[in-house]
Amino acid sequence: MKQLVEKASILIEALPYIKRFRGKEIVIKYGGAVMTDPEDLLNFLQDLVFMNYVGIKPILVHGGGPSITANLKKSGLQSKFVNGLRVTDEKTMEVVIDTLADLNKSLVHDLNRLGARAIGFSGHDAEIFHVEKHKASGDVGFVGDVVSVNFAPIREMTDLNIIPVIYAVGIDDDFKTYNVNADEAASKLAVAMQVQKIMILTNVDGILRDAQDPQSLISSIQTDEVQDLIDRKIIQGGMIPKIKAGIEALQGGVKKAHIINGNITHSLLLEVFTDRGIGTEIILPS
Amino acid sequence: MKQLVEKASILIEALPYIKRFRGKEIVIKYGGAVMTDPEDLLNFLQDLVFMNYVGIKPILVHGGGPSITANLKKSGLQSKFVNGLRVTDEKTMEVVIDTLADLNKSLVHDLNRLGARAIGFSGHDAEIFHVEKHKASGDVGFVGDVVSVNFAPIREMTDLNIIPVIYAVGIDDDFKTYNVNADEAASKLAVAMQVQKIMILTNVDGILRDAQDPQSLISSIQTDEVQDLIDRKIIQGGMIPKIKAGIEALQGGVKKAHIINGNITHSLLLEVFTDRGIGTEIILPS
Amino acid sequence: MKQLVEKASILIEALPYIKRFRGKEIVIKYGGAVMTDPEDLLNFLQDLVFMNYVGIKPILVHGGGPSITANLKKSGLQSKFVNGLRVTDEKTMEVVIDTLADLNKSLVHDLNRLGARAIGFSGHDAEIFHVEKHKASGDVGFVGDVVSVNFAPIREMTDLNIIPVIYAVGIDDDFKTYNVNADEAASKLAVAMQVQKIMILTNVDGILRDAQDPQSLISSIQTDEVQDLIDRKIIQGGMIPKIKAGIEALQGGVKKAHIINGNITHSLLLEVFTDRGIGTEIILPS
Amino acid sequence: MKQLVEKASILIEALPYIKRFRGKEIVIKYGGAVMTDPEDLLNFLQDLVFMNYVGIKPILVHGGGPSITANLKKSGLQSKFVNGLRVTDEKTMEVVIDTLADLNKSLVHDLNRLGARAIGFSGHDAEIFHVEKHKASGDVGFVGDVVSVNFAPIREMTDLNIIPVIYAVGIDDDFKTYNVNADEAASKLAVAMQVQKIMILTNVDGILRDAQDPQSLISSIQTDEVQDLIDRKIIQGGMIPKIKAGIEALQGGVKKAHIINGNITHSLLLEVFTDRGIGTEIILPS
Amino acid sequence: MKQLVEKASILIEALPYIKRFRGKEIVIKYGGAVMTDPEDLLNFLQDLVFMNYVGIKPILVHGGGPSITANLKKSGLQSKFVNGLRVTDEKTMEVVIDTLADLNKSLVHDLNRLGARAIGFSGHDAEIFHVEKHKASGDVGFVGDVVSVNFAPIREMTDLNIIPVIYAVGIDDDFKTYNVNADEAASKLAVAMQVQKIMILTNVDGILRDAQDPQSLISSIQTDEVQDLIDRKIIQGGMIPKIKAGIEALQGGVKKAHIINGNITHSLLLEVFTDRGIGTEIILPS
Amino acid sequence: MKQLVEKASILIEALPYIKRFRGKEIVIKYGGAVMTDPEDLLNFLQDLVFMNYVGIKPILVHGGGPSITANLKKSGLQSKFVNGLRVTDEKTMEVVIDTLADLNKSLVHDLNRLGARAIGFSGHDAEIFHVEKHKASGDVGFVGDVVSVNFAPIREMTDLNIIPVIYAVGIDDDFKTYNVNADEAASKLAVAMQVQKIMILTNVDGILRDAQDPQSLISSIQTDEVQDLIDRKIIQGGMIPKIKAGIEALQGGVKKAHIINGNITHSLLLEVFTDRGIGTEIILPS
Repeated sequence: MKQLVEKASILIEALPYIKRFRGKEIVIKYGGAVMTDPEDLLNFLQDLVFMNYVGIKPILVHGGGPSITANLKKSGLQSKFVNGLRVTDEKTMEVVIDTLADLNKSLVHDLNRLGARAIGFSGHDAEIFHVEKHKASGDVGFVGDVVSVNFAPIREMTDLNIIPVIYAVGIDDDFKTYNVNADEAASKLAVAMQVQKIMILTNVDGILRDAQDPQSLISSIQTDEVQDLIDRKIIQGGMIPKIKAGIEALQGGVKKAHIINGNITHSLLLEVFTDRGIGTEIILPS
Repeated sequence: MKQLVEKASILIEALPYIKRFRGKEIVIKYGGAVMTDPEDLLNFLQDLVFMNYVGIKPILVHGGGPSITANLKKSGLQSKFVNGLRVTDEKTMEVVIDTLADLNKSLVHDLNRLGARAIGFSGHDAEIFHVEKHKASGDVGFVGDVVSVNFAPIREMTDLNIIPVIYAVGIDDDFKTYNVNADEAASKLAVAMQVQKIMILTNVDGILRDAQDPQSLISSIQTDEVQDLIDRKIIQGGMIPKIKAGIEALQGGVKKAHIINGNITHSLLLEVFTDRGIGTEIILPS
Repeated sequence: MKQLVEKASILIEALPYIKRFRGKEIVIKYGGAVMTDPEDLLNFLQDLVFMNYVGIKPILVHGGGPSITANLKKSGLQSKFVNGLRVTDEKTMEVVIDTLADLNKSLVHDLNRLGARAIGFSGHDAEIFHVEKHKASGDVGFVGDVVSVNFAPIREMTDLNIIPVIYAVGIDDDFKTYNVNADEAASKLAVAMQVQKIMILTNVDGILRDAQDPQSLISSIQTDEVQDLIDRKIIQGGMIPKIKAGIEALQGGVKKAHIINGNITHSLLLEVFTDRGIGTEIILPS
Repeated sequence: MKQLVEKASILIEALPYIKRFRGKEIVIKYGGAVMTDPEDLLNFLQDLVFMNYVGIKPILVHGGGPSITANLKKSGLQSKFVNGLRVTDEKTMEVVIDTLADLNKSLVHDLNRLGARAIGFSGHDAEIFHVEKHKASGDVGFVGDVVSVNFAPIREMTDLNIIPVIYAVGIDDDFKTYNVNADEAASKLAVAMQVQKIMILTNVDGILRDAQDPQSLISSIQTDEVQDLIDRKIIQGGMIPKIKAGIEALQGGVKKAHIINGNITHSLLLEVFTDRGIGTEIILPS
Repeated sequence: MKQLVEKASILIEALPYIKRFRGKEIVIKYGGAVMTDPEDLLNFLQDLVFMNYVGIKPILVHGGGPSITANLKKSGLQSKFVNGLRVTDEKTMEVVIDTLADLNKSLVHDLNRLGARAIGFSGHDAEIFHVEKHKASGDVGFVGDVVSVNFAPIREMTDLNIIPVIYAVGIDDDFKTYNVNADEAASKLAVAMQVQKIMILTNVDGILRDAQDPQSLISSIQTDEVQDLIDRKIIQGGMIPKIKAGIEALQGGVKKAHIINGNITHSLLLEVFTDRGIGTEIILPS
Repeated sequence: MKQLVEKASILIEALPYIKRFRGKEIVIKYGGAVMTDPEDLLNFLQDLVFMNYVGIKPILVHGGGPSITANLKKSGLQSKFVNGLRVTDEKTMEVVIDTLADLNKSLVHDLNRLGARAIGFSGHDAEIFHVEKHKASGDVGFVGDVVSVNFAPIREMTDLNIIPVIYAVGIDDDFKTYNVNADEAASKLAVAMQVQKIMILTNVDGILRDAQDPQSLISSIQTDEVQDLIDRKIIQGGMIPKIKAGIEALQGGVKKAHIINGNITHSLLLEVFTDRGIGTEIILPS
């Protein structure tokens, strides 16, 4: 009995955090490397369901990097990158969409099976992400920059306490489909909807001063300190677009931005339901 | 960190129970002896708030026995009982209403303060409990039997996820106010609303085969075994109306009825969020 | 221009039918042989989307016979039938669920992609279909008879104008999963929800007096004429459970029951938006 | 059967257009010359009903020029115009209101009879259009310029999928009633509500380069080309306030403005449900 | 100031009556002789608006006897009655519908103009009243008995706090239109919707023991006393169907039935907002 | 009867005022001296209930000056004021909160008992009023200036037609509780919610040119005339913060601001339901 009472007390401890976030929308960028382990995935989905049950409104934006690469390989297509952007011809685009649509179906299905209500959206068919062809890095094919976001159907779902699950592709004025960076898409959506928080999941603990030392985690960083860390190669590679997405979200009016390790069990709950949170928080200079 | 992950896991363990009870109404009879300790009260209210936050719809019906007796004493009025019913003249009735209204105000206020939405109802002003003067035990003054229940304003509140807190007095066809037994009122309300569950809180662990031995708790009892236990004085005193309220609820279509010790920390959560539950469950013969 | 005006006139012709069915729920049993052709599937889904757009509330119940048989084969498992019921051991059940879950995911995804809102439900996880082990045909393993239906989450979705897509498996009191006949499940759901209409899609035009002659379609049949047609082998094989499902729906209070050829292009719209309808209508004796 | 399938296909062809406009508000200015033919009226109303049924939200603003002139004549009052504005003394104003109220009643009644839900609003009683006395053209009596719009009761109706039908009169700060130009009123309402589209119905096909040649229709015109066309008398007379209303709507943030021939059968559907649309579209310079 | 305070007190006096009827539906039969005086009409409509504003849900059912007779005369058609039923050939039916549709338009328009929201329904187009040809009095043409009521669109409107205004014609299974008695139609609707109260307005004060003496009003009558009063000619003529409509409403579960003089200023408010009410109340034998 | 008809006419006279304010939010500052008389309180609460019943949305903000002073005295604590601000140490703050919470409970309870729905909010627990420590008058302890307002939970309640009752305390970034001026709090809330009207109740009739002469009431004053009246001591003492609260509300976009004598019977209704209103209206210079 005593153990049960302790468990009940832990539920009660969550009350102030639930109170703080009830009715608030949180954009969660999920994808890539973090999606591979089935147990991590289950933990992640359970966290979403718990949030849904207590009245918090998560919005999931996902890409699917490693699965796309794998599927391209199966189709005999090569993955080529310029400035971290996947060079995307028509055939590649088909594989991208098929892969993301499959991931989306699975996420939606699993959330519904776990007892939450979820609905899948494609960024192009549902005309969520409007893009222009990306030009800054030369011609990389069907890669788009998000120029505007149609969030009406997403808000409609969060109003009904249904979890929207969106895969990050975009559509241009001629109704052509483009590959978009999921971090950027999540950030643009978060700004358009003026959500409370954006959480970008990755497979490292956050920004580490020393990549070899998990103890060197920077738990909070100001937006104006970032460039220096990039120059010093402390922030590098795939972390750069994530940090940039976080900064843009903050500058666009989102209240909070976090980089979190999706491989930590129940990382979403830990971030939301503890005072300290986990991972690296990005903040505006005070 | 490990400890945090364990805490998160405990939140996740609650998911299947939340799923089972989400959107379901539960009538909770609260009152009397169980109300005296401030820490127990806080635990009780937090449990209600947690239920409210996860979409379960508790409905609170309360009396106020000991406080009424104390206030009568202060007013120089004596407490007289016939067959467990408080003999209620006009002056006594005034004290009863004042006391219950005060308790009601406090419960509503505390629930709102803790972050849930709660609204107070009086059984008479809001015309919830319609009564006839009680006659079976002779003339005991303004004591009424509940003959019908107007639950429309209560349902209106649970539809809005607001916790109704009702104090158990009734009104007759001539708009006179009557004292009613809170166990009976809760049971009648539970039947009228066809709720999922009625939980009657008391200050013992449930029905004990041996009043001296807490290990002798009967965790489940069939309605047709009750009379025998009453005859054998295993069920006696104030427990009798509670058991009867539970039986009437079941016979009226309520799915489950429980007698629970309100003094156990977080007893509501333990009952709802564990498979075994606590206290004594009353069941219809299969 | 003239052609455009004619097209507009055809939209307007649909008005009285839309008016008749707006806000009404229609259970549609879909599955088996009819699911194989991708173009038929697209037509079918577009019809659902059109219905959704004009305020009609379709509810999709599906099985997945041929795909299940194919997947069992892939897994090296044999399909054995007793009285038309698939003998279902534990391994078979796993394949059944995997197959249906996959079909469900695809249907939900495609509906969302086409612009409707759809949500998937499993008959077991979402605890829609409560079953008892089927005994009438001897022990055929995990095959269940639907004994009750929990339609609350389905109604919640139709209230929000979201299309529920349910796959036909059931759950018993011990939370074990059972294979159920999708025709039966659809019929039980239709009765529980007291819907306007049940439409059972198959791959023939309805009941034919002469199986070789499509002109011999019986467009309307009374429930009391059915047994005679079974005795005379005019109704036989897989058509029998479909007719029975239709009869049970009518006897349970559903207003209309139809057997329709899902391979006819836009068969749903033809049935709903023409006076004569298509296929065979089953009616109660007047 | 083949013909039926073709008809069903035409319904399905409308899907992408429905998807594009579902939930969107469209202000439709209707009135004057276009209202006289009963068959045209029926076509027009059916189009509104169809739009209502598929979730598009038309808002009807109407005047009643020719009927007003006819009724003034019956009352022995003369119609005098200054700069296209009807000189409106008190008696004239009475006839204006009576005429518009009658037209309004008929439109509302017919829409309801056809199966849509519609509600009538007067621009003055319901305090939709707040005006100041028009002064730019000298004293023309009770003619007002719309200075602000109270659209709250209109939005309330479109939220409920009910068609608001508003007749164009205004009210000033002293609660006096004024005649207002219906094109202007529609444009001001469209801007206030930030609707998707304004459609101004008239009895010509749009702007014709050569008034004698229907083939000379200008299907798209930039706002900055208009003045030149007015100077060259290509746009003249009653078309000028319509074009101006369209321009002001666009400049105020309305997405699209169209001048359409209401005498074309199902002109509303043709405009909304074809890619090319009909009539003349006014656009902002790119 | 003192006078103003008194007026405010009168508003406050209405509170308990508002409380009693808030959210409750009341069917009001209006029509015939009572409709002729414009000031009475205004009073009547204001009462409806007040009820609408304080959350009471009136539902108006109207006929139009005298206007119909007048319009038939204008059309050179004779009014013939058998057993109080208007013999209705096709031409007569056309006049009936035109007349009622006009009255309906005016009532709806005036209610909207006065600030309430109202929507018109025809008993046939909206398929509210389903009838069979009346036979009990021989062939009187298109006169129907109401056999079932489709109240769904009416409830939809009262849920939105919109006043439904319905004119009493019916439709049979072959979609032919029939004249129906408005008292009967109101009663059938009241039973179908299980409303709180039916109020049948007429142009006398209620049932008078002595038709010449307004002081002889019977303020309350039991259903089982009625036949005797009919036999004694105290209840006669047009009052008989009104009383019968009231009795059928009560026997069908409507809580209260009243016959009220619509020519008394603010008769609706007097009936609802005073303890004694006005007119004659019909009650079930206790 | 005649008297009854007159009473009904008075209800009808209120219609245009109800129409004007239906659905509109009105912030009412209540408190201090005006709260002491039980009959005034009842009148005040009935006015709120009437407003609630007719669809007007009052929001109550209250302090509790005299009760606080009395309770401090009981606790042996002195009331010290600097610039009209109560010097508030920790013990004083406790008494403030206890007193206000008690008043809040009573107001909420009484409103519910009278038949309206009301819910209590504390400015700190519910995190409505965010404050910074007040510094302009030196260190006066836990006295805060309202720097931002979280009105989301308040709007949620007015949307549901529930009356929010808020007591004026604030919370700072470190979750410490501060005493705030209730006039200021009401004004800040009114601006944040952009309500229609703010009504500040006090115990004098408004601004009097001659404090001894009730006939010298200034019924309307421009904001730019105020300073002069302060300089001339016509406005002085506790009236100054009330006027300032009114001015800030107007400058922040609130449509109307009134200072009203809460001791006048039904002062709220008189203000809302008469053309002239009562008390002193503050207006922006035209």
